[in-house]
Amino acid sequence: MKPLGWAFLFLASVCSAQESADFRPATTNVWGGQYPRVDGAGRVEVRIKAPEASTVRLNFWSGPKVDMVKQEDGFWAFTTDPLAPGLHYYTLIIDGADVSDPGSQHFFGGGRYASAVEVPEPGVDFYDIRSVPHGQVREVWYDSKITGTWRHALVYLPPAYEEQPQTRYPVLYLQHGGGEDETGWIRQGRANFILDNLIAAGDCRPMIVVMAYGYARRAGAESPDLSGRPFGSPVWRKALQDMMTAFEADMTEALIPFIDATYRTVPDRDHRAMAGLSMGGMQTFQITLNNLDLFSHIGGFSGGLGRMMFGDQELDIRTVYDGVFADPAAFAKKVHLLWLGIGTDEPARMLEGIRGLHASLIDAGIEHVYYESPGTDHEWQTWRRDLKDFAPRLFR
Amino acid sequence: MKPLGWAFLFLASVCSAQESADFRPATTNVWGGQYPRVDGAGRVEVRIKAPEASTVRLNFWSGPKVDMVKQEDGFWAFTTDPLAPGLHYYTLIIDGADVSDPGSQHFFGGGRYASAVEVPEPGVDFYDIRSVPHGQVREVWYDSKITGTWRHALVYLPPAYEEQPQTRYPVLYLQHGGGEDETGWIRQGRANFILDNLIAAGDCRPMIVVMAYGYARRAGAESPDLSGRPFGSPVWRKALQDMMTAFEADMTEALIPFIDATYRTVPDRDHRAMAGLSMGGMQTFQITLNNLDLFSHIGGFSGGLGRMMFGDQELDIRTVYDGVFADPAAFAKKVHLLWLGIGTDEPARMLEGIRGLHASLIDAGIEHVYYESPGTDHEWQTWRRDLKDFAPRLFR
Repeated sequence: MKPLGWAFLFLASVCSAQESADFRPATTNVWGGQYPRVDGAGRVEVRIKAPEASTVRLNFWSGPKVDMVKQEDGFWAFTTDPLAPGLHYYTLIIDGADVSDPGSQHFFGGGRYASAVEVPEPGVDFYDIRSVPHGQVREVWYDSKITGTWRHALVYLPPAYEEQPQTRYPVLYLQHGGGEDETGWIRQGRANFILDNLIAAGDCRPMIVVMAYGYARRAGAESPDLSGRPFGSPVWRKALQDMMTAFEADMTEALIPFIDATYRTVPDRDHRAMAGLSMGGMQTFQITLNNLDLFSHIGGFSGGLGRMMFGDQELDIRTVYDGVFADPAAFAKKVHLLWLGIGTDEPARMLEGIRGLHASLIDAGIEHVYYESPGTDHEWQTWRRDLKDFAPRLFR
Repeated sequence: MKPLGWAFLFLASVCSAQESADFRPATTNVWGGQYPRVDGAGRVEVRIKAPEASTVRLNFWSGPKVDMVKQEDGFWAFTTDPLAPGLHYYTLIIDGADVSDPGSQHFFGGGRYASAVEVPEPGVDFYDIRSVPHGQVREVWYDSKITGTWRHALVYLPPAYEEQPQTRYPVLYLQHGGGEDETGWIRQGRANFILDNLIAAGDCRPMIVVMAYGYARRAGAESPDLSGRPFGSPVWRKALQDMMTAFEADMTEALIPFIDATYRTVPDRDHRAMAGLSMGGMQTFQITLNNLDLFSHIGGFSGGLGRMMFGDQELDIRTVYDGVFADPAAFAKKVHLLWLGIGTDEPARMLEGIRGLHASLIDAGIEHVYYESPGTDHEWQTWRRDLKDFAPRLFR
């Protein structure tokens, strides 16, 4: 009964739901998935069947690994302390194998498909689907002469795009973090719902949002041999710089022309913005500051200036990127918005790095917006809040 | 160095590629994923790190579970015999925990995210991305009064949709199988590339393809208590019928009106088709044969008439669905295409079931197309071939 079997499984699972105390299946579970569960305080109860395992560890990326406890029924269980609101990646380490939880939806992060649990934020619905007009998310493939490959991107079009076939729209290029891909801002970040809600409330200009795959290698480029080279060594840095440079070329020479040819954009610098999180923030600074003829709005979400992130170079704000920050008046004329954000619970190095950049920009007299997300780590809740603050300031 | 760390991981993984013999990383791996590997004969080499595991089993859904062999480096490995071309779902059972392979992309099947490996078919590229105009796949959300929930669907629009704003298009509703979801036909089936290639070759009329989430429950409906009820028991059947009926109502009363209101469709029965695989095939027969005022083209891919699938009722072709097959001339006037397909290596019960239906339709004098996919099982290669044969016959 294979073909029907799954349907029955589905029915059985959704019909066997029982909710203990106020623990409820996470909204990020697969349909019918009863675990993980979340309670009103943000505690997360994880449960996995591994009857023959000798050790099962729970690996929330935002915290230390913990040992799960074997139950009599062959399941292993653990309930966390209350977690901050938002989406938390996790995996399970079963006798040394680092795998995803079959009860959870899988999200692309850390260079693999990982589980994640959504901890609701009471009274907050700016990233929920609501009864407002919805934009559409489109999948596009473009043939990049830079990488010599087909590349996949997601494009959000605002709700009125099809009803108003004469209207042209500004464009925000919005990048994922390292280890994530072009699906992150929709699946994890819920950027489409954030924009839908902001646009419906009149808080944000209708805009197109393009989410690209942030890794690239030039067609025919040699793979550097990184084996045995220490992290941060010259070979590593060269490899990263090559990747960043190839992505910069792909975005400016392949993606932007494709988007302007495919959609009703306003194809000029005044109506083009770029923002990104973490590694995507570094890419944003590099690409926008190297190409101010193309961009006029810049957002760094938990990501600083490239060289700063190496952590071992003093940042001289007046000389970075060919001295773009040396003349505040000239900068303000070109850049309509420079936006920086960080979560107050992010790792000290990142928090200090972004706060230091903020201070340097003040010293240099560079007008910018600075936002700290209270109580959130280097995670999606920070970046959802960043987008909510950033998007309304665009194209004004 | 967390934000950069993943980028470095990425670089390290793609740069450490070494290919032994003609085993190559599967195209379905995550970027940089070196395993599973596939060789020219279709053998699949799976490798997973589980240093403390006592047993690791490889579970290809198309075959029996096998024990993997522990290596000295803490990895477990197994190489299969040659597999048929196409996409094969699999999971790993690590000390009793049934999990996905972190080296593989994950696809929604079996009610969870599963690993899968693509075994290439030499000389066959009808489902590959090629240098032809590409349609766009769009994500839409519609508010269903039937289920009382927001529902997600994917919509393929043909390449010329935006260049020809006056053109209206016929619509194919294309359903996934049991345990899969609305993403299956794109992620696993590559329906968008199949249509792109057929349309570019002039073999197929440009059409809109709508892929809906095939499970539904009426708003406020009670969950049946299935605990302890034997499979196929009256309670089970009622539950399945309720689900099928709710989905039928959702499609006919919510989804179709939404699609016709949102896209430039030709909103009549002559320009509306439905097809589905396995459970989706059953849904197709039920929904189309109950609603011939809405549909005129019908495709069943490895899925028969609902009651037939229960396997314990004689199918009387002249009485099913209120005798719709009783008058061949009347049927031929209403139904422009009735299409049946099955893979020759599918389980005997299914193969015989569809062959039996084919024979009954011949006896009843019902004009139809029958196709057998040589050497393929109840898997996506069968359904990709089905779509390639089915789509060109639509709307002629």
